[in-house]
Order: sequence, then structure tokens, then C-alpha cells
Amino acid sequence: MMYGNSTYRRVRRGLYALAALLSAAVAGGRADTPPQDDWRTVDPQNLVLIDTKYGQVAVELAPEFAPKHTERLKALIRAHFYDGLSFYRVIDGFVAQGGIGEGTASTKDHPDAAKDLEKKWPPLKAEFDRASAATPAFTPLGNGDLMASEVGFEDGFPVARAPKEGREWLIHCPGTFAFARDNDPDTASTEFYIVIGQAPRRLDRDLTAFGRVLSGQQYLQKLERGDPEVESGVIQDVSKRDAIIRVQIAADMPAAERPSFQVIRTESKTFADAVELRRHPTSPFYFRKPPPVLDICGVPIQVKRVP
Amino acid sequence: MMYGNSTYRRVRRGLYALAALLSAAVAGGRADTPPQDDWRTVDPQNLVLIDTKYGQVAVELAPEFAPKHTERLKALIRAHFYDGLSFYRVIDGFVAQGGIGEGTASTKDHPDAAKDLEKKWPPLKAEFDRASAATPAFTPLGNGDLMASEVGFEDGFPVARAPKEGREWLIHCPGTFAFARDNDPDTASTEFYIVIGQAPRRLDRDLTAFGRVLSGQQYLQKLERGDPEVESGVIQDVSKRDAIIRVQIAADMPAAERPSFQVIRTESKTFADAVELRRHPTSPFYFRKPPPVLDICGVPIQVKRVP
Repeated sequence: MMYGNSTYRRVRRGLYALAALLSAAVAGGRADTPPQDDWRTVDPQNLVLIDTKYGQVAVELAPEFAPKHTERLKALIRAHFYDGLSFYRVIDGFVAQGGIGEGTASTKDHPDAAKDLEKKWPPLKAEFDRASAATPAFTPLGNGDLMASEVGFEDGFPVARAPKEGREWLIHCPGTFAFARDNDPDTASTEFYIVIGQAPRRLDRDLTAFGRVLSGQQYLQKLERGDPEVESGVIQDVSKRDAIIRVQIAADMPAAERPSFQVIRTESKTFADAVELRRHPTSPFYFRKPPPVLDICGVPIQVKRVP
Repeated sequence: MMYGNSTYRRVRRGLYALAALLSAAVAGGRADTPPQDDWRTVDPQNLVLIDTKYGQVAVELAPEFAPKHTERLKALIRAHFYDGLSFYRVIDGFVAQGGIGEGTASTKDHPDAAKDLEKKWPPLKAEFDRASAATPAFTPLGNGDLMASEVGFEDGFPVARAPKEGREWLIHCPGTFAFARDNDPDTASTEFYIVIGQAPRRLDRDLTAFGRVLSGQQYLQKLERGDPEVESGVIQDVSKRDAIIRVQIAADMPAAERPSFQVIRTESKTFADAVELRRHPTSPFYFRKPPPVLDICGVPIQVKRVP
């Protein structure tokens, strides 16, 4: 009021208006904190911590979608396989791929190491999808999309379903964690990737996706990029690749260092209300109400870190 | 062959297979370079260069979609308005917002500066959409999506249309450049944002979008983030905000420093072929062919920097 209709006031209000919109977009449209019962504490056996020089990335695994890949990943982590390796192929707007990479100890210059690697970590059978199960509960988003007739959430993970086939799979959204593979579907072994751009949904059900980033996505965004026109994004100068300093499973960490996260229960009324508000936003900011359909990868699944 | 069926070979092939897929995803499915005629050189009057400490971001403007906003932006740039300001609200997975911000010289602690600001840069009338025009040519993507029955490309920009209304607008994809505003639609003044996450399509036709990043998106991804739970993502510690070091229009730069870009002609057969290949990928990597529908924000619009 003090400055009347000044540009200052408008600009400032504008900032807050967009701020509120952003907040609604990120927080799922809630300013208040959902009741405690609406949160699930992440099992420390399914919580993976990846240390980079920019910060720590926390990934929750969904073992029920890929039991063998989960088992492999945990074995790799517990063998300290990834510690000191790198994010060697990082394509802006697409994925950050980590693991052995190229030009390192396990490539053609080191055939013995390569043979040893195969013995230790044989290729895995694909786990692209699974039979739709009664648990965890599937909560439909409320609309299908271009890529699947049915999409929704299970225990905090975005999931798509083929109802006629009775199959379901994790969706490739920003933050989705998956294993890379060769042309043969049954060839994933040690290399992983995390989505860092517009949801590459065309990879859905064609790779084994079995986790999602709970926090630290912004650190992945800081990773040194490759040139997608050169060797498909593999960073040619090995010294420029950002290190995977260390990967740990929360359950293995000393209690004092072990982070703990809670994820909104996607089967809760609190979450349903947030989705509904997102679908029909009441903010006066919307001059034109958006179509009442949601992008599953744009719906925030709230996470909080607990002491 | 040398290492037979070794894990090394599989892993290495796997890397290249995924590499090829990534390359196809990023480059639009072409390994060869399109003929020269298929490229349009970006008008230096519509090329905006934003210097950050991480690198230079190049934005192409689409003046025909928002002539008044384009005029304002150019006037602001030529008045060196943005030089030394900051990206003060950066929300991972959503937008990087730049301009005056808060806690700086133009806020409530400086009412005279605020009044001066209003006089110089009065609020603009919204340019959320425009009448669908014959030029530039509209090239349909080939499928609609959740948010619009008709989507496609005009001169290298992703566009949506409402055929019955005869209106069209720029789509919010990663890299889309737009002006922020207050709740009142006609309040944009000086603040801008660039999309850095999953396409926030619900903002389509509700804000004035009039450009897209041609290169340097990875530098925006390195910007210091705000906490979306605190003041809606405004970085509270002003000293942590990354500076907008300088903004220039290419036409104003000395020839020796002036970058030049070419963009694939989205009305060309070359582009159509790339879209078709993306829709029906032939790579043996795809164990399961993806549904033959495309996400407009996932279709690469190729850009190259020319000497």
C-alpha cells in the first residue's frame, strides 16, 4: 500500500505471486505440513547415498520392481565397486551415467581386469516390468498420458501399467535411477544412469528402472557434461569427469552419519488432495486455468529429511 | 571379438549402444549432417547472450510471438539493466528466475529507486498467445498431447495451437525463456525466467514466453539453488546468488566476439525425417518399440554454432 501502484510494488508482488506458484508447483500445492501419519520413513536398506564433490545424492530403491538388480547394486556398493569411479557420460537434458566408463582400468588395455570383472559381475536378466501386484497400493494419477493408459504412484514411485497385460513398471522421470545395458536386454551389469532432463518416457519398460532421487538432484545438475556430438556424450578428457567419490547404503553407515528421509504416502488423502489442487489450481495467478490433466513426472512427491 | 563374450566387451558394447541411443535422442536420430540449406542462421538482433560465471547462455527470441516484450527486453539489455543483477530464485527442476530480485537496490528500502524503476519500465500488456499466422510455417509434430490438441514447430520453436480459436503460443519446454508477472496478467516488467526442469506445460498461455535457449543450458543447471520451502525458492543469502554478469544482444557485439548459431529448419524434410525416426526408432537397442507418439519437449531441435 505504501508505494501505491508503483512498479516496485508490482514487481515485488509479482515475485511473490510467481513464488507462490512455484512453491505450489514444487510442494504439490500445500503450504501446511501434512500430518505425520502421511509420511513413510525410507528403509535404510533401500537408501543409497552417492557422494560427489558438489554434494550428496540420496536415491531410494524400489526392490520389488527389480529384485536382482537391487541385489547386484547393493553387492557392488558393498564391494566398494563405484568408489573412485566417475560420471563419464553426462548429457545435458538427458542422463548422467556412472560406473567404469571408458579409458579406465577395465577397458581393452586391461584384458585381465575385464575378464575378472565378468566373472565377478555377470550380466543380469532384464527386469523391465513386473506383474501388477496388490501391494504396494497403486494410486492412479487420474489421467493416462501419451505413453501409457494408466499411470499413478506406488509407495512414492511413479508407475505405469498395462492393465490388459497385468504388468507395471517404473516411469522414467527426472531423478529416475536405472541400469544401462547393451542391445541384448539381458546385459546390464554394473553401469547405472540417473535421468537429469525432460522425462525420457520412450525408455520406459525398455530398461530396468528401480529407484529415484530423493534429494541432491541439483548436484547431479552440476556434473561436468559431455558433448553429445562426440562419442555420444562420453567425456573424452578423463581428468574432467566428475568422480563418484563414494557410494554407501544408509544401513551400513554409522548412525551419526546416516541420513534419514520420509516420503509422503502416495496412498494418503493428503497426497490425493495435493494432486487434486494441482489439477484444479485455485491460485489467482492462473489467468487461464490449465487443462485438468497432469504430467506424472511433474507431480511432486514430497520428501523431507529428518534428524 | 578378441575378448569373446567377456563382461568387458559386453559392458563396452553396452556403453556404445546406450551411447548411440543417447546420441539419437539428442541429435534427433541422425548421425550425418543435414544439408546446409536445411539450416537457418539466427538473426543477431534476436540472439541474446547471458554471461554467467559458469559460461555463456545463448537465447533466441521469437519477436513475432511477443513484440512488446521483445522490445522491452532489448531496451533493458541496451540500458545494461541486467548487468550485475542475479538469478535470485532458482528452483531445481523448475525455473531459474533473474532480474532485480529481493534484498537489492530496488526493494522497499529504496523507494526512490522503485519509483524511478516504474517510470522507466511500466508494466506490459500480456502477450500470452497470438493469432495463428501463415508465416512462419507451422509444422505439426504429428500427435497432440495432454495439454493441447495441436502441437508442432515454427521456425525452430515449439508451438501449441487452439485451432478453433485460431490462436497459438510458445510451449514451456526446458530452455523456454519468458517474463514473470504478478497475478494480474498485464504486469510483466523486468523479471525473466528460464525453464530448467520437466516442461511446466501448465504455465502455457498463462505467461509470455518468447524465446528458447540455444546453448549453455548446462550453465543454468549449475546455478546456485534456492530452497523451495523457504520464501518459495528465493535464495535468502544474497551473497550466494549467482550473478548475471552481463547480457548482450549479438548485433551489438564487436564482430570478433559475436557468436553465430544456426538452427535446423523445422519445416525441412531433414527435420521431418529425424522426427519420423524418433517416432519409429530402428535402433536394435529397443527391445520393445516405444508407442509411436512424441513429447514435443523431448524432440531435439538441432543447433550448431558456426565460426
